[in-house]
Amino acid sequence: MTLETIIGILAGTFTTLAVIPQIIKSWRSKKVMDVSPIMFSILILGVGLWVVYGILKGDIPIIVTNGISFILNFSMLVLMFLYKSES
Amino acid sequence: MTLETIIGILAGTFTTLAVIPQIIKSWRSKKVMDVSPIMFSILILGVGLWVVYGILKGDIPIIVTNGISFILNFSMLVLMFLYKSES
Repeated sequence: MTLETIIGILAGTFTTLAVIPQIIKSWRSKKVMDVSPIMFSILILGVGLWVVYGILKGDIPIIVTNGISFILNFSMLVLMFLYKSES
Repeated sequence: MTLETIIGILAGTFTTLAVIPQIIKSWRSKKVMDVSPIMFSILILGVGLWVVYGILKGDIPIIVTNGISFILNFSMLVLMFLYKSES
């Protein structure tokens, strides 16, 4: 495996999984008042389009990483709607 | 321009600029208590590695989009440290 490939995998792993600490924080505190639902809506739209792009190009890594991002960011948006009234 | 290219540009634009509504929200409210600084730290690390990857591959779109992401997410992290004590 080349250095480029290793750096690419690390980069993709970090950007894909970065939202997990936010999900854990919101899940524990049940507070989401300061978090922007517009940010997560645009992210979901963006990674959703990346999945479409990956399907059109037949590029499995793009489909998988953005598919995971889609699920994680969508989960965060659901949490935001659940906890909105409690904030 | 192919359909794939158009979808790729849209996807990259959305995922790159998604953090702007969060920056505006935090800037206006001066409250960041519910936002995860770990999320933004990992994002900065991830997009920083994407920039390195782009440099190694000589891929300008990867360098530019992730360079913009790096600046935006870094700005958000700075705001979080500025407003932390006020939250």
